Amino acid sequence: MSGSTYGKLFRITTWGESHGSGVGAVIDGCPAGLPLNETDIQKFLDRRKPGQSKYTTKRNESDTVEILSGIFEGMTTGTPISVLVRNQDQRSRDYGNIATLYRPGHADYPFTEKYGIRDYRGGGRSSGRETIGRVAAGAVASKLLNELGVRVCAYTKSVGPYTVPTEEYRYSEIPENSLYMPNNAVAEQAGEYISSLMAEKDSCGGIVECIADGLPVGLGEPVFDKLDALLAQAVMSIGAVKGVEIGDGFSASASRGSINNDPFYMDHGAVCKRSNHAGGTLGGMSDGSRLILRAAIKPTSSISRTQQTVNTSGEDTDITVLGRHDPVIVPRAVVVVESMTAITLADLLLQNMGAKMEHIRKIYLQ
Amino acid sequence: MSGSTYGKLFRITTWGESHGSGVGAVIDGCPAGLPLNETDIQKFLDRRKPGQSKYTTKRNESDTVEILSGIFEGMTTGTPISVLVRNQDQRSRDYGNIATLYRPGHADYPFTEKYGIRDYRGGGRSSGRETIGRVAAGAVASKLLNELGVRVCAYTKSVGPYTVPTEEYRYSEIPENSLYMPNNAVAEQAGEYISSLMAEKDSCGGIVECIADGLPVGLGEPVFDKLDALLAQAVMSIGAVKGVEIGDGFSASASRGSINNDPFYMDHGAVCKRSNHAGGTLGGMSDGSRLILRAAIKPTSSISRTQQTVNTSGEDTDITVLGRHDPVIVPRAVVVVESMTAITLADLLLQNMGAKMEHIRKIYLQ
Amino acid sequence: MSGSTYGKLFRITTWGESHGSGVGAVIDGCPAGLPLNETDIQKFLDRRKPGQSKYTTKRNESDTVEILSGIFEGMTTGTPISVLVRNQDQRSRDYGNIATLYRPGHADYPFTEKYGIRDYRGGGRSSGRETIGRVAAGAVASKLLNELGVRVCAYTKSVGPYTVPTEEYRYSEIPENSLYMPNNAVAEQAGEYISSLMAEKDSCGGIVECIADGLPVGLGEPVFDKLDALLAQAVMSIGAVKGVEIGDGFSASASRGSINNDPFYMDHGAVCKRSNHAGGTLGGMSDGSRLILRAAIKPTSSISRTQQTVNTSGEDTDITVLGRHDPVIVPRAVVVVESMTAITLADLLLQNMGAKMEHIRKIYLQ
Amino acid sequence: MSGSTYGKLFRITTWGESHGSGVGAVIDGCPAGLPLNETDIQKFLDRRKPGQSKYTTKRNESDTVEILSGIFEGMTTGTPISVLVRNQDQRSRDYGNIATLYRPGHADYPFTEKYGIRDYRGGGRSSGRETIGRVAAGAVASKLLNELGVRVCAYTKSVGPYTVPTEEYRYSEIPENSLYMPNNAVAEQAGEYISSLMAEKDSCGGIVECIADGLPVGLGEPVFDKLDALLAQAVMSIGAVKGVEIGDGFSASASRGSINNDPFYMDHGAVCKRSNHAGGTLGGMSDGSRLILRAAIKPTSSISRTQQTVNTSGEDTDITVLGRHDPVIVPRAVVVVESMTAITLADLLLQNMGAKMEHIRKIYLQ
Repeated sequence: MSGSTYGKLFRITTWGESHGSGVGAVIDGCPAGLPLNETDIQKFLDRRKPGQSKYTTKRNESDTVEILSGIFEGMTTGTPISVLVRNQDQRSRDYGNIATLYRPGHADYPFTEKYGIRDYRGGGRSSGRETIGRVAAGAVASKLLNELGVRVCAYTKSVGPYTVPTEEYRYSEIPENSLYMPNNAVAEQAGEYISSLMAEKDSCGGIVECIADGLPVGLGEPVFDKLDALLAQAVMSIGAVKGVEIGDGFSASASRGSINNDPFYMDHGAVCKRSNHAGGTLGGMSDGSRLILRAAIKPTSSISRTQQTVNTSGEDTDITVLGRHDPVIVPRAVVVVESMTAITLADLLLQNMGAKMEHIRKIYLQ
Repeated sequence: MSGSTYGKLFRITTWGESHGSGVGAVIDGCPAGLPLNETDIQKFLDRRKPGQSKYTTKRNESDTVEILSGIFEGMTTGTPISVLVRNQDQRSRDYGNIATLYRPGHADYPFTEKYGIRDYRGGGRSSGRETIGRVAAGAVASKLLNELGVRVCAYTKSVGPYTVPTEEYRYSEIPENSLYMPNNAVAEQAGEYISSLMAEKDSCGGIVECIADGLPVGLGEPVFDKLDALLAQAVMSIGAVKGVEIGDGFSASASRGSINNDPFYMDHGAVCKRSNHAGGTLGGMSDGSRLILRAAIKPTSSISRTQQTVNTSGEDTDITVLGRHDPVIVPRAVVVVESMTAITLADLLLQNMGAKMEHIRKIYLQ
Repeated sequence: MSGSTYGKLFRITTWGESHGSGVGAVIDGCPAGLPLNETDIQKFLDRRKPGQSKYTTKRNESDTVEILSGIFEGMTTGTPISVLVRNQDQRSRDYGNIATLYRPGHADYPFTEKYGIRDYRGGGRSSGRETIGRVAAGAVASKLLNELGVRVCAYTKSVGPYTVPTEEYRYSEIPENSLYMPNNAVAEQAGEYISSLMAEKDSCGGIVECIADGLPVGLGEPVFDKLDALLAQAVMSIGAVKGVEIGDGFSASASRGSINNDPFYMDHGAVCKRSNHAGGTLGGMSDGSRLILRAAIKPTSSISRTQQTVNTSGEDTDITVLGRHDPVIVPRAVVVVESMTAITLADLLLQNMGAKMEHIRKIYLQ
Repeated sequence: MSGSTYGKLFRITTWGESHGSGVGAVIDGCPAGLPLNETDIQKFLDRRKPGQSKYTTKRNESDTVEILSGIFEGMTTGTPISVLVRNQDQRSRDYGNIATLYRPGHADYPFTEKYGIRDYRGGGRSSGRETIGRVAAGAVASKLLNELGVRVCAYTKSVGPYTVPTEEYRYSEIPENSLYMPNNAVAEQAGEYISSLMAEKDSCGGIVECIADGLPVGLGEPVFDKLDALLAQAVMSIGAVKGVEIGDGFSASASRGSINNDPFYMDHGAVCKRSNHAGGTLGGMSDGSRLILRAAIKPTSSISRTQQTVNTSGEDTDITVLGRHDPVIVPRAVVVVESMTAITLADLLLQNMGAKMEHIRKIYLQ
């Protein structure tokens, strides 16, 4: 059915397949009066573009965005912002052999069962190209958040077994290595690991971490639409993500209350916390400290090794997935996680506008 | 704003505070013709009721459900099912001291900032009693799923550092220990650990695992409303949950494609998988194998130890949380995780009804 | 499916059947800090209560409201407000004969076809009692609107063929006659007409008009969620309503642009209009002038005359609807139309909060 | 905020302004396996295209549709269908004079107040071109409905004071006159009337009627999402519509129960009605008879006569609206009303799929 829309007030709808005419998104509900142009969006898209390092697919797609609506004289007008990216280097011949085979780890089998029909040219709707719409929307959400002093930043915490421990983070190094890790030395080791996997026609996954600073207190709705719950949906809805955690996450399950509770104290008139095991949320609402989330990303499913599978006629067979695939999608997923986080925060910022009569009087009675 | 509703077609709305008149839910969108009575719901509620073992709060609440609408002659009628549970043993005097203090680990501080007002008697809306509405709805969803041959089952995988390894699961032992662990021996060790924490006025968390068998292939919508994404929202929206993972989850991030991909094969005419690292979903849709998810639950925030905090006047102070609290909420959370999973599956079953013209012709042309 | 919820941010969910335990509503998304108590709601409910004049059913229902949640110390807390009205004078024996017959003008036939099961005691979910939840929510919405200087007022414009022309409106007379008409003389004629219909075991309909003053400019979203479009849904969703119009409505279709366009002019620094054919909306947004809508209400379907119909076995037969029914529901529908209008306005007021960056900066940057 | 999306399961999102790059829609939730191509959509768009008769604007826009996604080998795939129509003959110089003036009858004033910014080139988002997205979606919905034997048909019932009485309908004449009236003789009179208004630089409105045959019984949800309520929203959300009625509509308000109730009878084993004052709905659900709705359309607001207004600096002034405008938009609105009706019906058909367990068992247990 209709599951291509995300968000309640800041609401995005993505569309498009890997081998159709293009992909895009409609961003509805962006407030009027936000300065915005194509460069703002292109900068985000360039971060997920293929072909940027030896660890990403060699497909050549410029992914140039066109804004079709919603902007007038460099400002948002409050009407839907429609963005379009044409597909280019499709080479659909590479995918001919998968028309009748179900690729392990891919959506081919449930897609066929669910719809009775499948666009077998590449991943179709389940392709990573679907994230282009998300990233374009994330650029808009980030622009909005920046205006309010909120900064969202994602990076690669681990690649396969290579992890940067929190105490060794050097944020300034993130843009210095092609894996977007906050530590160049670990990134170099991870890069060698990826190279060895490529030689073995294998692939790996990793963990993306995302932080947000400057959030007002109280974002998130206390029951089903908790800040952490919506972030979990947003991030888990990205193709290869298999787990999401906030703050100490799974580690918290082995901790104790006396350690895990973050004590409050006053600092220059502000309520602060002495630790941040919670990762910035209490009761599903932002608590004024840094938001921290992590997404577990599985190894790329497309590997060139021969694998066992079945075909659409229900026979056992082998498959060798051709085409040019990323040995690890983690570095390209960084901006997608950052985008989904920004979109969720922008939506909750808008939802929070009417939380109390004091806000409402401030807008309507003056 | 309005964040008390979950689900698109099978849609629940919960309401109520810990110390108001009661709590409840409206379950809208349940198909007509499902046999249902109060016993079906009461059985679920009894699983989360306090006072059932020495590891749960001694509060005495019978939590008796009344169905106010939506049932006629033992069957659902297609109209909203409204359920009400009156609050009983409130003892709001226990909570007097927290009216002007922010409890560490609780929602008090962001709640006050967000709304400018807080029902300081207990957790108010952020109390664990809010889950009563979820569990009542979960009972209805489970009844519906059972009719279609789908079985959902949750249990405690770990308590603090005590974990049951998958290879030592004995499902039949789940109801035999008060921690709902699939291994009585580990449960006994975990129980001793909880007892020692109680003596230290401390608390712990744990991991709840939930499985579902018998799912049709293709449940879940391929983009934002992926099966795993909605499960992530549903489960992360439960009070103390800090992380959610599907299948191998975070472990998958350190694996390789050649290992993590589950090969397909044919078995008696059915498409099967030789492994299930994916945990039952591919591309956000059920793949016909067992659904597996885990929720990380933080240690109970209410501990009797004195903790540092601030008061509503912005002064540093100490707090000693009185009242009767669970040293670990994991065993009571088991049925809540199971309920949120069942609700999500029921909703996606309904959403999937119109996925293809073949379904639509089957209903309208015959 | 789930169609018992209305509103995006100020969101109501109603539940309950005429002959079940009771009826009620959950009002989610009401801002915190609004003074509210049971009297505020009871006053609204008393306006739709049966048995208030000789023109309404003699059923004796006190319709006493209980607020179950969402209020603390006389103020809304931002959490869902759950209201409950127990059913009392049900006399379900009166309805025994309709268990197997489809009453003309009623929902019995499509209800049975849609759900395969029908609560045949009275109208079930399609009973007028369902509007109790709407009116309770309308009381809350009105309280909110009043705080912002918005006043909503509905009244009976016509009963059967008896209409009060606009130029003869005397608003002060509305509460003076039991038909809530803005002209006592016409109300007296209409009353005699109703009496004559009662003698003939017949019924009539009428037109309810609703106005709102003090609206800010710009409420309503420019495309599908236009102010007039949502009002149309809201009002047409009331049981017996068969038509909705805004401003000149159907008359405008026979007018000319040169007459129908309302010229703007300045008055003491404010943009005003010399006429109000538009009824207060332009392009789906409030334009600062009075909002005017009308709802056409059909004659009561329950009449004591013998009518032709069929039974659930598919046989031609006669039916004589027993029970105590309103010869005209228009006076009791007045407060329902007013409520649905108020709910819609409250929702759009909240939706409009984030329309422009200027608003957002005002809340978050200061 | 975000009001550019309509529908719950068959869900459309429109975007675009009159003088931007183009307009379009994303149609999400269309079932897979529906034959569909660009011609299906172009045929619908051609019915609303300008320049088709002397009574419509002379603007020259080919309005050629491009389907960007969601179709594979001539069939829908279940993924979102994105359609794009580029803007062509914009001549934005015609609109320069309205940049600082509020056109009477237009959305200029509330738009500016709401958003603080307005795309003053033409109507911007409030332009009639926004309906292109609706009509494209209507073509898809109609294709779906036709597969199930449902036929939707709209036509012009009246132009200004010229009305075709029901007893003089000749449906075959609808495509024979450029006003799409079901009576060529009345159409000719109406045409002369329009010509006279054009000479006077004036405009008129009219009434569009829409019927649907072949509907299954039970479409529509019994409370807020009644068939008639959603149709009211859908149709009232079209730019110039000021009123909506179902069946006898406003006339029913002056009728009697004994006349207005439609008696049931059996005909060849089917439940039928001897009359259809209800217009095909009972209790908000389709009753198996013909659905009948009417939309009142106001006179075109853009007239070349000089009118009083104010400017954006708050000064009284005059305005003469230049550009090429329709003297009556009714004939071009016919396909828009038909489209919004079809979209609503398609959505309710999908929503009804899970109304009863019998349906659900039919899909999942077999």
